Amino acid sequence: MRLQVNDGDVDDDLVPPPNFSSVEDGIFRSGFPQPSNFPFLKNLNLRSIIYLCPEPYPEENLEFLRANNIKLFQFKIEGTKEPFVSIPKDAILDALKILIDVRNHPILIHCKRGKHRTGSLVGCLRKFQNWCLTSVFEEYQRYAGVKSRATDLQFIEAFNIEPLRQCVYSIIYQYQGYSSNKRRLLYREEKLQKPQTTPV
Amino acid sequence: MRLQVNDGDVDDDLVPPPNFSSVEDGIFRSGFPQPSNFPFLKNLNLRSIIYLCPEPYPEENLEFLRANNIKLFQFKIEGTKEPFVSIPKDAILDALKILIDVRNHPILIHCKRGKHRTGSLVGCLRKFQNWCLTSVFEEYQRYAGVKSRATDLQFIEAFNIEPLRQCVYSIIYQYQGYSSNKRRLLYREEKLQKPQTTPV
Repeated sequence: MRLQVNDGDVDDDLVPPPNFSSVEDGIFRSGFPQPSNFPFLKNLNLRSIIYLCPEPYPEENLEFLRANNIKLFQFKIEGTKEPFVSIPKDAILDALKILIDVRNHPILIHCKRGKHRTGSLVGCLRKFQNWCLTSVFEEYQRYAGVKSRATDLQFIEAFNIEPLRQCVYSIIYQYQGYSSNKRRLLYREEKLQKPQTTPV
Repeated sequence: MRLQVNDGDVDDDLVPPPNFSSVEDGIFRSGFPQPSNFPFLKNLNLRSIIYLCPEPYPEENLEFLRANNIKLFQFKIEGTKEPFVSIPKDAILDALKILIDVRNHPILIHCKRGKHRTGSLVGCLRKFQNWCLTSVFEEYQRYAGVKSRATDLQFIEAFNIEPLRQCVYSIIYQYQGYSSNKRRLLYREEKLQKPQTTPV
């Protein structure tokens, strides 16, 4: 059964981190995990964690990562209150590249509260998935609640996902061995030819 | 890539149903899907839908289900405001049996707003997964917002998941061919012996 169930004693309740949720198959989000959340996280069989704060990771959390062979990707994004600091686009783009790479799944995204930095990253992921902006914002607000920030929503709206698409296409072409000058053309052809049967 | 991406034109934004979210791998929740949400739902490759309202399913939704070979499980739970109607335990138990059966996945749970009936069913699923009650309630409230109902939380807290566990154990024993009088004993032994290598 793929459903995550407690593999320990049935009397031990599992404690997910605050603001925890599933985002997609193999992608989770939350606030900062405490040691009380480790048994729960262990059951997710995580392969990696994306951590979006500049503060160093606590030693006991690092210990948990080592013991469970979980890779840590840290992107040092300041969490200072608006309107003084803006989210760095490059860090979000780099985090997205890690996030959409299924070789890093199952993966947990977290910052401190799982609201602003995590919400902004997930919002950009949804844009990449072509969600309409209304639904992206609805999801952001569900986790941010009364702490919702207009600057985060503006960041998500303005974020350009084209570089990420190009990056994904590059990986596809790399695997298929196309020369770089044919990239764009071949991609379009591929899409058109997909449903047809083509002679070899 | 397991990540759900738009397989149509990149310019067509996908519109998830209201209050949509992933619950677990292969399990989703939302409010009532409208035709504008069908392209999004199509991309989820749903195998089934759990619908928790007594009203008949609209013809255009049935049409969408037929076209995409999606099975509908309807549980007629009244949505009248508290404190007049209580959620029927049997319906929730039956819905849980459908929900945890991976042969029905990917599966979408929905009612009208994705708040009370859907939230109660997901809350009971979380109890089955041994989540602590605080986290179960946090999740319920994230979707219900200001419409959160104390009666739903009480229902979740009081809901007895033992019959569901027994049901799951029965399925396990059925597959393994144990006779019914050995059930409890063998289950315990099994758990203890799991990490050992036993000679055949």
